[in-house]
Amino acid sequence: MTTPEAIRFETSPAQYRHWRLEIEPESGGAVARLSMDVQEDLGLRPGYPLKLNSYDLGVDIELVDAINRLRFEHPSVKALVVTSAKDRIFCSGANIYMLGSSTHAFKVNFCKFTNETRLYLEELAAESGIATLCAVNGTASGGGYELALACDEIVLQDDGSTAVSFPEAPLLAVLPGTGGLTRVTDKRKVRRDLADVFSTLAEGVRGRRAVEWRLVDESVSRSKFDAAVKARAAKMVARSTRDAQGAGFVLPPLEGSRGPTGSRFAFVSMALDAERRVAEFVLKGPSGAAPASAEALRAGGTAQWAVDFWRGLDDCLLDLRFNQPELGLLVFRSEGDPAAMRAHDEALAKLAETDWLARELVLLRKRVLKRLDLTAKSLFTLVEKGSCFVGSLFEVALASDRVFMLDDEDGAVTVGLSSANFGPCPMSNGLTRLETRFLYDPSLVTALRDAPAALDARDAAKRGLVTFTPDPIDWDDEVRVAIEERTSLSPDAMTGMEANLRFAGPETMETKIFGRLSAWQNWIFQRPNAVGQRGALTMYGKPERAVYDYRRT
Amino acid sequence: MTTPEAIRFETSPAQYRHWRLEIEPESGGAVARLSMDVQEDLGLRPGYPLKLNSYDLGVDIELVDAINRLRFEHPSVKALVVTSAKDRIFCSGANIYMLGSSTHAFKVNFCKFTNETRLYLEELAAESGIATLCAVNGTASGGGYELALACDEIVLQDDGSTAVSFPEAPLLAVLPGTGGLTRVTDKRKVRRDLADVFSTLAEGVRGRRAVEWRLVDESVSRSKFDAAVKARAAKMVARSTRDAQGAGFVLPPLEGSRGPTGSRFAFVSMALDAERRVAEFVLKGPSGAAPASAEALRAGGTAQWAVDFWRGLDDCLLDLRFNQPELGLLVFRSEGDPAAMRAHDEALAKLAETDWLARELVLLRKRVLKRLDLTAKSLFTLVEKGSCFVGSLFEVALASDRVFMLDDEDGAVTVGLSSANFGPCPMSNGLTRLETRFLYDPSLVTALRDAPAALDARDAAKRGLVTFTPDPIDWDDEVRVAIEERTSLSPDAMTGMEANLRFAGPETMETKIFGRLSAWQNWIFQRPNAVGQRGALTMYGKPERAVYDYRRT
Repeated sequence: MTTPEAIRFETSPAQYRHWRLEIEPESGGAVARLSMDVQEDLGLRPGYPLKLNSYDLGVDIELVDAINRLRFEHPSVKALVVTSAKDRIFCSGANIYMLGSSTHAFKVNFCKFTNETRLYLEELAAESGIATLCAVNGTASGGGYELALACDEIVLQDDGSTAVSFPEAPLLAVLPGTGGLTRVTDKRKVRRDLADVFSTLAEGVRGRRAVEWRLVDESVSRSKFDAAVKARAAKMVARSTRDAQGAGFVLPPLEGSRGPTGSRFAFVSMALDAERRVAEFVLKGPSGAAPASAEALRAGGTAQWAVDFWRGLDDCLLDLRFNQPELGLLVFRSEGDPAAMRAHDEALAKLAETDWLARELVLLRKRVLKRLDLTAKSLFTLVEKGSCFVGSLFEVALASDRVFMLDDEDGAVTVGLSSANFGPCPMSNGLTRLETRFLYDPSLVTALRDAPAALDARDAAKRGLVTFTPDPIDWDDEVRVAIEERTSLSPDAMTGMEANLRFAGPETMETKIFGRLSAWQNWIFQRPNAVGQRGALTMYGKPERAVYDYRRT
Repeated sequence: MTTPEAIRFETSPAQYRHWRLEIEPESGGAVARLSMDVQEDLGLRPGYPLKLNSYDLGVDIELVDAINRLRFEHPSVKALVVTSAKDRIFCSGANIYMLGSSTHAFKVNFCKFTNETRLYLEELAAESGIATLCAVNGTASGGGYELALACDEIVLQDDGSTAVSFPEAPLLAVLPGTGGLTRVTDKRKVRRDLADVFSTLAEGVRGRRAVEWRLVDESVSRSKFDAAVKARAAKMVARSTRDAQGAGFVLPPLEGSRGPTGSRFAFVSMALDAERRVAEFVLKGPSGAAPASAEALRAGGTAQWAVDFWRGLDDCLLDLRFNQPELGLLVFRSEGDPAAMRAHDEALAKLAETDWLARELVLLRKRVLKRLDLTAKSLFTLVEKGSCFVGSLFEVALASDRVFMLDDEDGAVTVGLSSANFGPCPMSNGLTRLETRFLYDPSLVTALRDAPAALDARDAAKRGLVTFTPDPIDWDDEVRVAIEERTSLSPDAMTGMEANLRFAGPETMETKIFGRLSAWQNWIFQRPNAVGQRGALTMYGKPERAVYDYRRT
């Protein structure tokens, strides 16, 4: 099923086509500058020149990579300036011709990926002490302003023409799709009537008014712009809590194979069964001694479990989202040594108390697990003999829609918890997966802290950790039927159902972006007023105007 | 534009076709019983027999009426039992043939209305001390189980066949559309994997398992069922905080006229301008002395402002939603005596401290204002000479997407606040409209408590209460252009945009239902897998099976 045009997500700064990542020498390595300089003719697909620093998925893949490299490879960096290398234009957002010529599924997944990327930018500051400053040195429209919104602070060039704007609703009959509306109301707390005016004003807002409306933090003349940016970046460095020391941790390309029948990495293998519409995963736990020191962690390099496992799983999830639309169900099995898995979790947790690299690996795990929660595929976990669903790997089970656990006679099939299950892997709703699961009785989570290391099927079921526990006689049939039933259901209904059931409890800006805003955008992305023959997205750039059906829903 | 088949929302117990509202004599008037007994051949439109206690909008219009009458006409009632008058069937949810033969817009508005109704049921207990018990004396599927979920407690008959179920996703390729998924995870806090199994199991869950999974509170054999219901109702009565005394406050039909060019009630008039796609409202403030005692409030009857205004506005909003799909913008003007408006607000607030009827009128106002927030039309308020946007009426301005206020020379155009703006009218997000508006600086709300009674345009603008303040020279043009621009935009984009911008800040179960769940349902309601030629909703009841496109989004 994987065609030659399969989209791949690995890149490196030397390969960037659209961004430049520089560490400013005069800052003593404390300030990084990420400059957008999109190459018009180097879009991911042919057919849409990326004019005016507009972006497609390829541009965003490089942005994710740059953010990741700042975390791992540049421990000295304490502030990031995001800006444009072009004159008079910061970024004009997602390329409209690219959107207009994309399938509904691609548009939705493209927006989801760019939303994840914007959140990664916000997490840089919140988690790693790398504050972000957007230096809007030219007009930022649509996704361009949304990129700015994902930064901690925004400085706008005041030159009589540079504006921030959301032209999506007035010009394209869609919504800002990368968290813009939510960040305007909930992050920048723009007054709702001003947000309403702003979001329908194609030409946007400039200068002092942009500051008064809380759309940006500062508006500065062209001549004083660079100095203002520099001054803000210096303040960010001064108040940064990042205490990363020593050399960077270089991320070489992920080793493994990807092909039409699946992917195979050191600790993650994924077999694609197109006929059954199932992706079968085998997740391998770590082997060998856990790193006992920060030095040992570095010596382990990127081949060690805590790096390679999550990179492999992340790669598979993105492959499934973009290249395997027909696969509806992910089935997770695991193998390995439960004791080693727990030892690795606890070793990493201990190192993370003092070591920045260990902390970054804990955060990498968190991000990949969030990506799993947000993947629009059904998720089943099968706990069988020889499995290793413990701690970090048990989070995959907790992220699953259902967990089947074999109730064998000798109690040899077990699951187990580690400190990884009690805090460091929050979901988008701010709760751990255990807290979300046991919303009805938080004391069940507390009780699990004292649970035995190995829980057999009956104990796991009693404690609410697994869904079904068939015995060996029923196992094959029960699992087979459940898989067949799941993949026979409407994929749209499953996507909507899972988007609701997976996120019980509190909502955060993040869940609002994925749950509320994305769902409305998905709805609008299908409406004839946007994508019909005479819809605004279809007609964009053509001489005729869009024609709307004015019936309100 | 109003066709002869315009849907109207007024009814009364004597006219009910599908429900029976009885006050149980042996309870001393403390327990009401609302029994569903849907008449198959009395649907709102022809073409779909309402078999198995399935419902359409007409059934729900009666349910809303019954809830309202319990609040106003039956002060002795302290507990409500919702049940079925049919044998072996409680309620099979929204009629599928009705849904299958409805437009997208009708489906969406039907679900919104039924969602509001379910919330009214929940508010009965939370606000008025009338606890609700669902006596599920036969299978409750889909919307039937969602009706049960909206009650405080659920007792299920255990007879080997009675089940609760969500067959929407497995059978119809849509979602439970009346808050079901959200209430399962967030109200009943069902574990997410069990919720997943339940929501894909067309036949549902029965007996003890329904209790174990937290889907119902109790499962009781047929022979002990009535006694169990009675015992629970008695406990509800015993712990009720309702202290309503005296005679009921009878609600006669709302007096006024409704027609193709608009509606006219004592305090609300609505002129429909089909060509401009605008509904022009004039809201009249109260005149005469405010009621100074509970007796005076009763003597004022239903013709007084605090009753008739909100009933009239509510009627107009429902008319617009269901009968006027092409009208995209509501423009609110007001007239009246600002001092009288404030005096009426404060008099009602004072009475509400001790009098149940005054409290119910405060709650009526809150519900109508929420209905306004949730109406998928743009909302503009115009503050002109002679206007009366004060207190309660200023909440309409605060609910609007934009407020234009005339900056005349003599400062005669003013707005003002009352205690109504500082608490008793929360939005679905749990905050007042002022708190939501000033999320960026709560001290601005505090400062407004000490604001002068009359604020002119400049003061109102400075305090952030209005959006634009054109002077008399610019007023006409500025307002006209704003209206023309708004109504020229894509109605879908406006609906999605407003659904995001109006609800800044925290999310509640209620906003999750309208923001997250509804948006996903709207999306799915358009997908070919549900509504296409071979979609599940289209094919329901036919011998052929639905055919799905298995590409996941």
